[in-house]
Amino acid sequence: MNKTIVLQKRPFGPLKADNFKILDDRTPKLEAGKLLLRSMFFSVDPYMRNRMNAIRSYVDPFKVGEPIEGDAIAEVMDSDHPDFRPGDRVTGSFPWKEMMCIDPARATKINDTGISPTAYLGILGLTGLTAYFGLTDVGKIRPGEQVVISGAAGAVGSVAGQIARIMGCQVTGIAGSEQKIQYITDELKFDRAINYKSFPNIRKALAKTNPDGIDIYFDNVGGDVSDSVMYFLNPHARIVLCGQIALYNQSRISTGPRLNAQLIVKRARMEGFIVHDYKDRYPEAIEDLKKWIMQNELSYRETIIEGFSNLPSALMGLFKGENIGKMIVGVA
Amino acid sequence: MNKTIVLQKRPFGPLKADNFKILDDRTPKLEAGKLLLRSMFFSVDPYMRNRMNAIRSYVDPFKVGEPIEGDAIAEVMDSDHPDFRPGDRVTGSFPWKEMMCIDPARATKINDTGISPTAYLGILGLTGLTAYFGLTDVGKIRPGEQVVISGAAGAVGSVAGQIARIMGCQVTGIAGSEQKIQYITDELKFDRAINYKSFPNIRKALAKTNPDGIDIYFDNVGGDVSDSVMYFLNPHARIVLCGQIALYNQSRISTGPRLNAQLIVKRARMEGFIVHDYKDRYPEAIEDLKKWIMQNELSYRETIIEGFSNLPSALMGLFKGENIGKMIVGVA
Repeated sequence: MNKTIVLQKRPFGPLKADNFKILDDRTPKLEAGKLLLRSMFFSVDPYMRNRMNAIRSYVDPFKVGEPIEGDAIAEVMDSDHPDFRPGDRVTGSFPWKEMMCIDPARATKINDTGISPTAYLGILGLTGLTAYFGLTDVGKIRPGEQVVISGAAGAVGSVAGQIARIMGCQVTGIAGSEQKIQYITDELKFDRAINYKSFPNIRKALAKTNPDGIDIYFDNVGGDVSDSVMYFLNPHARIVLCGQIALYNQSRISTGPRLNAQLIVKRARMEGFIVHDYKDRYPEAIEDLKKWIMQNELSYRETIIEGFSNLPSALMGLFKGENIGKMIVGVA
Repeated sequence: MNKTIVLQKRPFGPLKADNFKILDDRTPKLEAGKLLLRSMFFSVDPYMRNRMNAIRSYVDPFKVGEPIEGDAIAEVMDSDHPDFRPGDRVTGSFPWKEMMCIDPARATKINDTGISPTAYLGILGLTGLTAYFGLTDVGKIRPGEQVVISGAAGAVGSVAGQIARIMGCQVTGIAGSEQKIQYITDELKFDRAINYKSFPNIRKALAKTNPDGIDIYFDNVGGDVSDSVMYFLNPHARIVLCGQIALYNQSRISTGPRLNAQLIVKRARMEGFIVHDYKDRYPEAIEDLKKWIMQNELSYRETIIEGFSNLPSALMGLFKGENIGKMIVGVA
């Protein structure tokens, strides 16, 4: 038996348990030239919600009746490829299955033994890389700038804020619980923080935290939080559009104030990006990120939920803000 | 007597006649080191509406009881400065007065006799320069791209669309009357046009005019028109935010769909700019614009309204779409 989670039906509005179905699939066998893998950890990420819709964005939608797929760490159980041996650990985008037989081209071997393999789903994986390229390449961050991060205690936000600090910037984090605020200020050393749930007038809060305005806004959330930031942009500010998690679960297009005139007055730039476009430059980024971890400049936390069957609830939990740092499901 | 138009009270919502007051001021005399000017033409421009609000944007607001000020052409009547002689024509940002005594530093002499002086309020003035730098520097226009221009028959839009054509792009213009549509397609040689008033479902119209998507959107209007464009962005599209004339006359902040997720999916960039930031590069742009005019590649039209007292109604007319090309008031 081989537990598998498929998209049972497409969501309309918030994700619900019945969008998913757990099946007992056949136990796979090693095929010629392939790898037999046993899943260890799955990453759940906000963008996966969008793949559950029927619309193609930058990746194809999941198909109804087919397994959900996401970044994962797995162990090689058997191999018919010379580069992989049983016991090797690999990372890649894999289906939500306990075991699977896959093409070796889809797996990258983790050779690093100095860091937990789950780091390759977060700080050294796509979320860390997203924070890195978003700030440096899209945001063109410069020392001494005023940086605001929304979703600041999340997987990407927590890394982005620390990179901004390492780059010599003043960092304000916006997050949704006292525990998260404490985390980003005490442990991650953000300069200032706003709990948007206990202080819903974010404009007033920002007026206090950011008397010198905002040069870079790293946006993970969209919606009201992001609208408020628009009033504090400095000339030539950059808005790095990374995610809009506040909007992904909505069944209708959300409406809000039209604030593009702020971008004109401030000669500001708002730009979306997708980390996959930086594939060629991942090694340089991973080198920097590892260096900062070794120097204790960059710390990270993971929210690990145990149990393959908890994958759907872990994904749903992202949209309720249940995670601090990277949300991961342990399935070994 | 010297007619002068002052800001009588700040507007709330659409501009009205009583926001302005025409006064009879003293006839000015030449002061030491200064120039005595007689106004010939005034430019009225959408950004002036914003200066009537109390809020500082990139320029200071007009003061209540003080003259409105705008770009103008004037004739030197008398001069106490060696560089200027009676009969010289000058351009600059001048108060709405029939006559005035000003510092020579505020006036630029027009030496060009090959082109009507009013060109220095439009095609060779700030509107032409805005179109030029918006497309080339902000938009990073490349040959063969799909370009959409809103406010396409206006002062900036009509130039922007022609520059895009000269640069080898396919151009779609969006404007608000059949007369304007005819102007931009017949006279300005835009490839395609949409009359948003006779075809209010702009998304459906764009699906027909732009089956290959949109690489550059040059936005002069904001609001519904601009929302529609967001659904057709190509990867790495650029939205050049030039103006938001559809919103300037509103007393409350307009609301609309939140579409930033489109910018993420398409890795697109939206950027505001202000032409004054390009001051150092005006000469190169004017050289290009003149060359294109001489080659009959670039044509322009002016809507000239006669009479100093008609300045307020000409400005109000901009927001009703009463102009084709540059709106100018002749006051000589």
